[in-house]
This record gives sequence, C-alpha cells and structure tokens, in this order.
Amino acid sequence: MSEYIEHDSQGVSVGLTEKLFYTFAEPPGQLVLESGARLGPITLAYEMVGELNAARDNVILVAHALTGDSHLAGYYHHDDPRPGWWDSMIGPAKGIDTSRYCVICTNILAGCMGTTGPSSENPATSKPYGLAFPMVTIGDMVRAQKALLDQLGVRSLLAVIGGSVGGMQALEWSVRYPDLVRSCVALATTTHHSALAIAFNEIGRQAVMSDPNFNKGDYYGGPRPDLGLALARMIGHVTYLSDAALRQKFGRRLQNRQDFSFNFDADFQVESYLRYQGSKFVQRFDANSYLYITKAADYYDLRQQHGHGSEVEAFAKTRAKFLVVSFTSDWLYPTYQSRALVKALKKNGLDVSFCEIEAQCGHDAFLLPSPRLTGLIGGFLARVAEEE
Amino acid sequence: MSEYIEHDSQGVSVGLTEKLFYTFAEPPGQLVLESGARLGPITLAYEMVGELNAARDNVILVAHALTGDSHLAGYYHHDDPRPGWWDSMIGPAKGIDTSRYCVICTNILAGCMGTTGPSSENPATSKPYGLAFPMVTIGDMVRAQKALLDQLGVRSLLAVIGGSVGGMQALEWSVRYPDLVRSCVALATTTHHSALAIAFNEIGRQAVMSDPNFNKGDYYGGPRPDLGLALARMIGHVTYLSDAALRQKFGRRLQNRQDFSFNFDADFQVESYLRYQGSKFVQRFDANSYLYITKAADYYDLRQQHGHGSEVEAFAKTRAKFLVVSFTSDWLYPTYQSRALVKALKKNGLDVSFCEIEAQCGHDAFLLPSPRLTGLIGGFLARVAEEE
Repeated sequence: MSEYIEHDSQGVSVGLTEKLFYTFAEPPGQLVLESGARLGPITLAYEMVGELNAARDNVILVAHALTGDSHLAGYYHHDDPRPGWWDSMIGPAKGIDTSRYCVICTNILAGCMGTTGPSSENPATSKPYGLAFPMVTIGDMVRAQKALLDQLGVRSLLAVIGGSVGGMQALEWSVRYPDLVRSCVALATTTHHSALAIAFNEIGRQAVMSDPNFNKGDYYGGPRPDLGLALARMIGHVTYLSDAALRQKFGRRLQNRQDFSFNFDADFQVESYLRYQGSKFVQRFDANSYLYITKAADYYDLRQQHGHGSEVEAFAKTRAKFLVVSFTSDWLYPTYQSRALVKALKKNGLDVSFCEIEAQCGHDAFLLPSPRLTGLIGGFLARVAEEE
Repeated sequence: MSEYIEHDSQGVSVGLTEKLFYTFAEPPGQLVLESGARLGPITLAYEMVGELNAARDNVILVAHALTGDSHLAGYYHHDDPRPGWWDSMIGPAKGIDTSRYCVICTNILAGCMGTTGPSSENPATSKPYGLAFPMVTIGDMVRAQKALLDQLGVRSLLAVIGGSVGGMQALEWSVRYPDLVRSCVALATTTHHSALAIAFNEIGRQAVMSDPNFNKGDYYGGPRPDLGLALARMIGHVTYLSDAALRQKFGRRLQNRQDFSFNFDADFQVESYLRYQGSKFVQRFDANSYLYITKAADYYDLRQQHGHGSEVEAFAKTRAKFLVVSFTSDWLYPTYQSRALVKALKKNGLDVSFCEIEAQCGHDAFLLPSPRLTGLIGGFLARVAEEE
C-alpha cells in the first residue's frame, strides 16, 4: 500500500511467483452488483503461493488494501527489484507458512493491476470504461473473489486475512459466507467508515476530479490527471502515518539546505518526501480506480448492510474464529473501532482474540515487518488448524 | 477562522466597530524582513475595542489565526450578519473585558483583509505583488504589529493573546519584546511547527499551485485558483476538527437521500459540508495569502530562531506571565507540545498557568464559546492587572 514500507523479510522467500488470471467469460460471468448494475465479463488477477492440498481446505485468502495488488510474496523474475507487498509475512516458516497453507490474493474489483476496473475495456464501446464503470462495493469485491474460489474448487477457507480495506473484505467474507470461513484476521480496520475517513477520501477524490486532465474520467490515451492523483496520494499518505512517525522520520529537517529558501520550494524533508510519494504513485495507479475503491470503502458499513444498523446483529450467522489487531498510533481506524467489533463478536459468542499493538508508525503499521504481528498471526492460524 | 463556529455571544456586545488603517509611509516605512528582503510601504488593517487609558498601559493585543482578520468583535454596521470572530470573548464583562482593557487586533502581514499582502499593489510595478511579494515570517508579522503600537504610543502590553498561528505570534512577542509584554496567553499552539502540520500545509499549497488558474500567482484580474484553494481549505478544515467532532456532527448520515447515489455525488453530509466550506472560503480569501501565511507557520521555530535549538534558552529573556491552554482533541497542536512549552517556561522561573481543556471539537476548540476558557482568560488577566 505504501512505499514507506521497507521490506525486511525474514525466513525463506517463496521464490518466483506469477500473476494468474481468471475470467468469468460465460453466464454467470456477469455479476449483478449491489447497485443493481451488471458487470461482465470480469477478469481477476490473482496469485497463489503454496500448494493446495488434496482436500482443498488449506486455503488462506489474503485481501489487499486500497492501492495494493495481488502480488503477495516472492519475485516475478530474478531481476525484480522488490518482492510482493507482504513478503515479510508470507513464505515457508513465516507468519503465514506456505509450507502448510495455500495463500491466494486477488487484485480487487475496480483495481488497475490486472482485475477488471475502470481502465479496462468496456465491451459495449471497445474503449476503457472510465466513469461508465459501475460503482462497486466491498461486498461486490468479495463476491468476485468467491467466484474465483468456486472455480478453483475451494469450498472452505482456513482463514481470510486483511488489513485496512483488506480487513473490510475479510469481515465481509465472515458475514456473507459464514459456512466457508473458518477464521478471520482483521487488521487495522473497521466495520464502517467513519466521517473522518470519508472526509479524507472525499478530498482526495475532489483533487482528482478537479484536475483539468480528468476530463470526466475519459483521459485514457491523453494526459492523465497526475497532479490531482498525486495530491490525493499525499493526503492519503499522511493519514497512514502518525505525528510520532513523521516526527521521528523527518522532524523539521531541511532538504539539501542549511537555511530556508524563502520561496515555495520544498524546504523540509517531509515536503520533499510527500511530493516524491505523489509523483511515484501516479506511475503505478489509475486515478479512476482510486475514485472507485475509495468510494467502496466509504460505502462500507457492515452494520447497515447486514445487521439493520446493529454491529451485533451483523455477525449473527458468522461462525469464524477471529483475530482482531489494532495499532496504538492508527488514527484512521483507531483502536476504539476494533474494540467495538470485538464486543459485537463476543456478544455473538464467537471465539475472538484481540490485540492492540504498540506502534508509532500509524495505520501503515499493519504492513510493516513486526515480530509481534507475525507471532500473533502464526499462532492464531496454527491454533485454528489444530482445533479443527 | 472557521465557519464551523456558531457564535453564541454572552454578555454585552461592543456594538459598532470599524476597520482602521495604519501605513508606514516614510522610512522606517520599509521593513527589512527576516529573509533580508525589504517590504514597504506597509499598511496594517486593525481594530481597537475599548478605551486606551491615559497611561496607555491597558492594551491587550490579540493575534488572529491563519485565515482570520482584524475584525475581533461587534458589528461593522447594523445589518452586519455576524459579529467579529471573537465576539464571544471580547466585550464589556466578557472574558476580555473591554470596559477595562483596550483590545487591538491587526490583520497579519501577507494577509488579504486590508493589510499589505500578495494581493496588494506592488509599488515597483503598480500591479498586485503575486509571488513577487517577499516571504514573511511570524517574526515579521510581530514586528509590523510593533510598528503600529509605537505609532499609537503604546509602550507596554498588558497581554498578548492568540490561538494557533495567533499563539505563535503571542509567543514570539514574549521573546522578541520581553520588556513590553507583561503577560502572554497561548492557546492551542506550539513553539515549532511539527512535520505533521507542515505536511498538511504543504499539501494545501500544492493544491493551490497545481490549479491551472494559479498561473504562478499572477491570477488577479483573471480566473482565480478557486478549485485548488477550496481543496486546501477542505484539508485544513479536517485538521481543525476531530474524529469525535466529525462523528457527532455528521457520522455516516446521508445528504438528501435515503440510499447511496452509486456515483460520485456527495452521498454523505460530511462530503457536502466540506465542499461547501471549500467554496465559501474562496469567496473571502486570497490563494497567495494562503501560501505565504502557511509557509510562515511552517518556518516558525522559536527554538532555532531565538534559542540555538533550545526551547528553554529561547525564553531566557522573557519576563511575561503565561497562560497556556491546550485542548484534548487537538491533534494538530497536541497537548504534549503545550507541555513542552510550559516546561521550558518553568525552567526559566517564569509564572506559568497551564490548562488542558477537555474538548471534543479538535483544534477549533480555541475559537468556540467556552465558559471554561472565558473564565480562565478573564481570571488570568485580572490577576495580571492586580499583581502589578
């Protein structure tokens, strides 16, 4: 999700991995979305790491966050400069042990890393969808993942794991497919997007849509709304960090200077860093995908969608065991939101482990290598596998 | 500073007030700025409320925040829809009692409410300065205020009071003019801008400068960078509030709808509110002023400027009594920053009162009517006046 992350893999790498694709080409290849609109054909890009066992019951589905992708672990080729985004967690003898489990991650619906999204070709026009792409929800993302698992013959998930927007998908799985999900790991996430989180997403969307190159979403083949998308990323990036993280990493240190410029150059390292993050992001991400995925996150409210407004009722049919983890300095999805989730799960008599990890790095903490988090997830998965 | 504020004045209104002007027309009418650049002539817009006594020693200088102005209290005319920005605090028998004190507020240097700033005419070109306006610092703002007080024959200040960027000016006064300042009230402020605060300001500036209408600051007489400035305001506005305030005021309530739009309209009230705040702000504020004042705030570091990096040393010559107030939910200038200030003041043997007020409304709390804050300021000022 964030380039702030410096991967510090421990354990053994999974080695080479590859991007796979599954397309729903025939009916029911069209998905009737929660909005009522139909979308199809749908292609999902995904990655599988580890071996599917004969019973096909050792599968762990990992759901990526806002701007992530299906590339979980290992390298696409020998010259790949960096491994998949959760390489520190996934591999033989790592927290998610690929010598035991088969780990699957799909690029989410509306994404831009191989899965059908607004930059994909609209079969009705043979041009990219742009804003003709229908709005999708977290529920729609999960239903598309379910279609892939059906295709793979997977009828049971050992675990669904995700952080942030990935955690929303994990919770949605536990509610929507209670008979399939044996456990759920929800990291730095929430059952419903807060007004604060909506506010920052909305400002990011306004930044994209205010860019004159946006052209109502029809910018493919022309100049892209890079300035707007870079701004959106800069805003998002600050919300993934914390006051303490920024203070430690940058403080008031100047950029290449002994004194102030007394103009509007980037005087401070933090300014230069943010500009760099913005400019790097636009090289890998599609502005329309950013709009759709942030809106899906904003729409997300398990309580309304599945519990008539009640967090407790939403999980009434859920049977999974839960590991819920929050991080002290995460102010985007603060611990009180995880505590409310835990309370609702417990009121349903579910098996719940909860941990608030002391971390200074803000929301991004769930992505950073952490022996504590690795131990928690590894231990939880082992217990789930043993107790069955 | 914020339209979020609903004034709930108590006590007696000061009645009609007016905008006054002072221009440094002759040498030393040019100010040699901290950058080394010269600026002049300089006009300051200001307001005086209450009577200057014969000894001219009952003056309280109030410094406004980022986007405030000199209009402190009362009404400009009988049809004025709203009073000055601190009308709840300033008036006969209010926290700052204008039956005893003479209260002065200037629009800050680089502002756009009557004081010389980037939208003012550049005497060298007879056109608005734009980015030819020199960069100014909090110190420069304070030195311009000092010139006005000299002109008024004021040789001693009963108090300098300000919140946020106004608090920076108040602290700067106490350090720069230790013989003049008898007391200092610093609300929701800091001795140095943090990386987090710089980050949000920089994103706001990038939003303004990315607007194609910005035209390198030379937009006067043409279309203005309203979209960029509105974005900057939306970003700023969220940082002035808090998770709790947004949750209480908006939660996930929808705007004029029973269900989601499934498009990029403003579905949520918080989205609509932010868009409105952005569009309203551009009607009253100049984009270049926003750039200059945020940069002055970012440059602000009393420790470096006056203490060779030491917060304690910075106040070595200060003689004022202090009231320092922070607010629990203020995450832009959190309480730990006020505590560090208080510690430095105490190490200098100064008379310091400190209070962290329980408030859910975030940084904006210092502007909201509060019996607690009114009582604190009123009591502090009375004690300062008595003990002399």
